[in-house]
Amino acid sequence: MARLVMKFGGTSVAGMERIRNVARHVKREVDAGAEVAIVVSAMAGKTDELVALCNAASNHYDPREYDAVVASGEQVSAGLLAIVLQAMGIAARSWQGWQIPILTTRAGGAARISSIEGNSIIAALKAKEVAVIAGFQGVNEETDRVTTLGRGGSDTSAVAIAAAIKADRCDIYTDVDGVYTTDPRVVPKARRLERVTCEEMLEMASLGAKVMQVRSVELAMVKRVKTFVRSSFDDPAGPCSGTLICDEEDIVEQQVVTGIAFSRDEAQITLRRVADRPGVAAAIFMPLAEAGINVDMIVQVASDDTVTTDITFTVASGDFDRARAILEKNKAQVGYAALQGASDVAKVSAIGIGMRSHAGVAAIAFKALSEKGINIRAITTSEIKFSVLIDAAYTELAVRTLHSIYGLDKG
Amino acid sequence: MARLVMKFGGTSVAGMERIRNVARHVKREVDAGAEVAIVVSAMAGKTDELVALCNAASNHYDPREYDAVVASGEQVSAGLLAIVLQAMGIAARSWQGWQIPILTTRAGGAARISSIEGNSIIAALKAKEVAVIAGFQGVNEETDRVTTLGRGGSDTSAVAIAAAIKADRCDIYTDVDGVYTTDPRVVPKARRLERVTCEEMLEMASLGAKVMQVRSVELAMVKRVKTFVRSSFDDPAGPCSGTLICDEEDIVEQQVVTGIAFSRDEAQITLRRVADRPGVAAAIFMPLAEAGINVDMIVQVASDDTVTTDITFTVASGDFDRARAILEKNKAQVGYAALQGASDVAKVSAIGIGMRSHAGVAAIAFKALSEKGINIRAITTSEIKFSVLIDAAYTELAVRTLHSIYGLDKG
Repeated sequence: MARLVMKFGGTSVAGMERIRNVARHVKREVDAGAEVAIVVSAMAGKTDELVALCNAASNHYDPREYDAVVASGEQVSAGLLAIVLQAMGIAARSWQGWQIPILTTRAGGAARISSIEGNSIIAALKAKEVAVIAGFQGVNEETDRVTTLGRGGSDTSAVAIAAAIKADRCDIYTDVDGVYTTDPRVVPKARRLERVTCEEMLEMASLGAKVMQVRSVELAMVKRVKTFVRSSFDDPAGPCSGTLICDEEDIVEQQVVTGIAFSRDEAQITLRRVADRPGVAAAIFMPLAEAGINVDMIVQVASDDTVTTDITFTVASGDFDRARAILEKNKAQVGYAALQGASDVAKVSAIGIGMRSHAGVAAIAFKALSEKGINIRAITTSEIKFSVLIDAAYTELAVRTLHSIYGLDKG
Repeated sequence: MARLVMKFGGTSVAGMERIRNVARHVKREVDAGAEVAIVVSAMAGKTDELVALCNAASNHYDPREYDAVVASGEQVSAGLLAIVLQAMGIAARSWQGWQIPILTTRAGGAARISSIEGNSIIAALKAKEVAVIAGFQGVNEETDRVTTLGRGGSDTSAVAIAAAIKADRCDIYTDVDGVYTTDPRVVPKARRLERVTCEEMLEMASLGAKVMQVRSVELAMVKRVKTFVRSSFDDPAGPCSGTLICDEEDIVEQQVVTGIAFSRDEAQITLRRVADRPGVAAAIFMPLAEAGINVDMIVQVASDDTVTTDITFTVASGDFDRARAILEKNKAQVGYAALQGASDVAKVSAIGIGMRSHAGVAAIAFKALSEKGINIRAITTSEIKFSVLIDAAYTELAVRTLHSIYGLDKG
């Protein structure tokens, strides 16, 4: 008999009609004989409302109290869904994090799951009772206090529970029907992927993060949880389409490039003629890290004088001014000739697990982009991804070009 | 050092400004050196909203799920108050029912507290941390599920916690500044009572229930918890006025009559010439009880034929038609000559623990009412109360008359 985790996000439970639709999805699986554990988010808008109350109470709220307040949203949606399921004649009960328990670290507002005691849920499932679990929340073992997992944490709850109860699959119901080769608003020919590996899903953060929280994908990879992304707005009785996030060996026909991701929210900083000595990278990046500024691409090339180097890196465009100010303040310690920056840049990435076994994948892109007159400001590559930094004005053109040359336009 | 429980109802925590005002009340007590445990209700309107969601989910909701959903309101207000207190520099944390734990019976939606483990709260208080406890909720020991105590249950939470942690006093902050000799809207000369006994408070249900839930007063009586009713809208720094609910021996100067209560929500039913045989009362009242109809005053007098009796009783006016229909259906079994009824009646009561030691207290009232031309339809008396049933049109006149003759108009 199949054992299933079904996760429904905030938009899927926003209002009683949608909760009833969720219940119909659950009924279909129960009628098919599955043992079903459900993980729900708070009704859309609820978490924002509770966070706003905490902020109104104090700008410097105790994260443990924030957790206690904000976790209430999932408690409500879990209870309501249990009631609706019962009204449909399906045995069901709600579970809060502390009742299972889902044990987490302390860190308020961004705890990590340390372990889940799966036996109580498994016993309920075996007794033919649907378990409706409040997502996003847990309890700290030492303090016995409620914790939350950070925004989008219900995805992580779902995957972790699937692992704990040895579920055959974890279905992530969301407001889109899967993961696409790129953003369909930019490339109308973008196609839904039938399958994607966890590794690719992680690299496609800018595409995938809208669908599933990055942490939950990591967890699915580590725990080898088969995850299926589909839309809760589909007709519960109709045909099902979605994207299976799976192991590499489950991908039957492998394409070299699986998807094209992009991010416009980038700024570039280049330090010219930095002394090429040990410790210089630390002198540049430590003060930024201490200021909470995330550095993404880092490219270092020898300057034309062959004695110093040029270092280019990107930060989120919102951090651009702050990053520049910090570097200018530290100019003496770092020792560079000039600081250049641009906040109107974009990062475009091609992702594909097939890159591991195919040489020259990136080279095709560089050629195609140059033929379109798109200047590449920086390049970084990883095992299954390469990214180029370009002027933001060319974002759509670059995405469409790459989508086309890697054969993603075709079905 | 004084140990205090402070309870704040829904109107007292409705919105951030009011929560801040509550925190100022708490700060005053902490600054005075008290150990403080707080019990809060949900923000006004919140519980209604959550109940409406449950009803929208299903007309026949599982009371355990109702409990899980509805208990979230107090969780939020407790967390927010803890945050506000911390922002004022007062060490504080929120507690949910299961964290203490407050153990209750199972009965969903109307559980009763079976025991409270006071040690965790006491330890927090001794460590100079204010305990902000979610009222209205507990946890069932066997099932480990969240329970709620029924409407107004936060008063009961407060008194029970006061007993469990051996508090010196339980302060009930509400939207009125105490218990009055009668409703000031009816008798402008009504005065706030400095002190009232638990027994009187119970008998004054129609006055007192607006201030404190009846069950919580019973509990205060049984557990001998000294309870003080005061307004949360008072200036936290200003002089304090309220009503102390205490033991009889704490009442210094005893008045014979303490207050005049009334209820317009009454209907009278009289059964004429009921056979005076064993079992007849059961034949009348059992079917009503089974239908969930509460019978209040019951008066039985011999009929003028001296063989049968006349039985008069009251029900809530909302139950009048149903009660009459049940009795008419059972006419043969009961065996009565005629059923008379009136739904435009009111019950007026005088309450005073001094009645125990004073004879003829009621007689004065009967005389005064008859002088005003008010016809008495029925009379019941208890040790510390007597009630008269009159035509509803005379309610205000009767209340004012009794308020005056028992000396309650004077300060």
